[in-house]
Amino acid sequence: MNPIGPNVSISERAALGVGVRIGANTIIHEGVQLGDHSIVGSNCIIGEPLSSYYKDDSYVQPSTIIGAHALVRSHTVIYTASTFGDHFQTGHHAVIREHCAIGHHCSIGTFSDLQGHVTMGNYCRLHSSVHLAKGSVLGDHVFIYPYAVLTNDRFPPSMTTNAPAIGHYTQIGVHAVILAGVSIGAHCLIAANATVANDVDDHSFMIGSPAVLKKDVRDLKGEDGSPLYPWPARFDRGMPWKNDM
Amino acid sequence: MNPIGPNVSISERAALGVGVRIGANTIIHEGVQLGDHSIVGSNCIIGEPLSSYYKDDSYVQPSTIIGAHALVRSHTVIYTASTFGDHFQTGHHAVIREHCAIGHHCSIGTFSDLQGHVTMGNYCRLHSSVHLAKGSVLGDHVFIYPYAVLTNDRFPPSMTTNAPAIGHYTQIGVHAVILAGVSIGAHCLIAANATVANDVDDHSFMIGSPAVLKKDVRDLKGEDGSPLYPWPARFDRGMPWKNDM
Amino acid sequence: MNPIGPNVSISERAALGVGVRIGANTIIHEGVQLGDHSIVGSNCIIGEPLSSYYKDDSYVQPSTIIGAHALVRSHTVIYTASTFGDHFQTGHHAVIREHCAIGHHCSIGTFSDLQGHVTMGNYCRLHSSVHLAKGSVLGDHVFIYPYAVLTNDRFPPSMTTNAPAIGHYTQIGVHAVILAGVSIGAHCLIAANATVANDVDDHSFMIGSPAVLKKDVRDLKGEDGSPLYPWPARFDRGMPWKNDM
Repeated sequence: MNPIGPNVSISERAALGVGVRIGANTIIHEGVQLGDHSIVGSNCIIGEPLSSYYKDDSYVQPSTIIGAHALVRSHTVIYTASTFGDHFQTGHHAVIREHCAIGHHCSIGTFSDLQGHVTMGNYCRLHSSVHLAKGSVLGDHVFIYPYAVLTNDRFPPSMTTNAPAIGHYTQIGVHAVILAGVSIGAHCLIAANATVANDVDDHSFMIGSPAVLKKDVRDLKGEDGSPLYPWPARFDRGMPWKNDM
Repeated sequence: MNPIGPNVSISERAALGVGVRIGANTIIHEGVQLGDHSIVGSNCIIGEPLSSYYKDDSYVQPSTIIGAHALVRSHTVIYTASTFGDHFQTGHHAVIREHCAIGHHCSIGTFSDLQGHVTMGNYCRLHSSVHLAKGSVLGDHVFIYPYAVLTNDRFPPSMTTNAPAIGHYTQIGVHAVILAGVSIGAHCLIAANATVANDVDDHSFMIGSPAVLKKDVRDLKGEDGSPLYPWPARFDRGMPWKNDM
Repeated sequence: MNPIGPNVSISERAALGVGVRIGANTIIHEGVQLGDHSIVGSNCIIGEPLSSYYKDDSYVQPSTIIGAHALVRSHTVIYTASTFGDHFQTGHHAVIREHCAIGHHCSIGTFSDLQGHVTMGNYCRLHSSVHLAKGSVLGDHVFIYPYAVLTNDRFPPSMTTNAPAIGHYTQIGVHAVILAGVSIGAHCLIAANATVANDVDDHSFMIGSPAVLKKDVRDLKGEDGSPLYPWPARFDRGMPWKNDM
């Protein structure tokens, strides 16, 4: 494979590491730094300018820093002014707005939509079609499933907003809605379709709309009677403890 | 910036206003009129033909009219036979089917999906991932949030459908579902996850599935005791009363 | 129309049938077979390699077989190692992962997301924004509406998963969630927003979270008192019985 595909546009002010590969028709804007051995698929835009670019003649493009061994899949749009750790991945058609700080080994799925100013720890996984409001904060090892939403405005529209914060290892099920300002603890499980309106303690299994505490996650057992949570004891794919189980 | 990017395809029968800019790889089909100072991002398709184009040798392409100062972001697909007022905006990857009539200062977010024959007033905002069934009607200043859906068929599939109508200033929360044929009044607030099955009066705050009237929106107060609705008294970003507050 | 648009990339090891048309900027990878008179829109990727392509020097690309008269709309990504029957259609921006077996006359809508290893009969229709977990199985004439999800893991994350199976003619409403391992019978109607946690018998109309049996679908009547289900008696658009009604 030719490392740089046809019809690729790379700014003279972008910096590409060793062994970088870029697919057809992709645009790499000014200020982008792509780490060694990173791969960007076709039809992507990396370093999309802020909207002030279109209005302000004195616009200065911030930098966009992507670590080593990234795999950004096709049709993804990543705005400028964000940083991404090593081993970053996206699905197809993901959109990531500006001023995000994303840790190592994170993955942001197909059709996911980060509204900017998102902070994310290490080893987080957003499955397809996850929407994170501007300002959302995720700890480490947070996994979020399709059509889940973190919101930042209870009585819209508002001039000021406040986004949720999600603790380490917490799992947020499909179609769950986390309302503005909610703080969720570590090792929680938020059920499919739950609407979380109030703060949630560590180890809570929450269900319903509005969500209520169903039980402590440590009381959830598998068919063989073994505990299901904390989940790191039974799941290691891509996790740092992979060879310890 | 070169006003027309690389690998752009513009029909000889399209008309571009003064100061138009078009990003790389975008296709502007026959019959498109782009207003003065409009910007179309990269990888877009403007004036996508009707499906009869593929089957009918006598196909005639209708016109697609976009007003002045538009900002259409990357990977957006806009079908032909629609009109858009001035200051129209889209997010990325939006899809807008044919025969829509969209007013001035409207914004249609990333991953939003208009199924055609949609009528929209002025100053409407669809956030990301909003799905409007064919035939939906929105008044002025209607805001709709992610994963909300307007549907047009209660017992699918049906040969005939009827879409909802939404009154001026109404706010529709994340994941809300508005069922076929429902008429919602002005200044309503539809809560996150609500399923609206029946017509709704002006000023209603609706919650639940099926949605019930929780209270009059004018009885919703902020932390300082001031009324939250009607919201134009406390929100003016991009609104015509911006300098009056 | 020139049958092959500008900036199209077609592998020497792809096979195109008679009368195939391909839009601008589309990539046709090795091993793709496109049936006679198929149309692929612009900015698509057909035969996207498996992820092992990026890691394994001995990677061998499987074949991707698309039948005759396909219409794949713009910005769609179809992975390799799948088969599609005749008269296959997609909307825009659809993503279809590897190892799917899709029947004849199926349609997969805009923003739909098939996570791979999906089996689908004939005449199925996924509307926009449908998410099918890896391993999902659909019968014939299954229709699924926007933001519905088939999931494959009740207590995520898990090392092993099991996806749902959906019977012939069943209709799954907007925002419905079908939980892992659930088997739904034939001729069912799953209401908007329902969460289906247990197996469902033929002809069931299910509502709520968790979903309960509301009634037999054969007891649902239209305004004129005629039965609404089984629906093939009243809907024939694109169906094989079209000229029988």
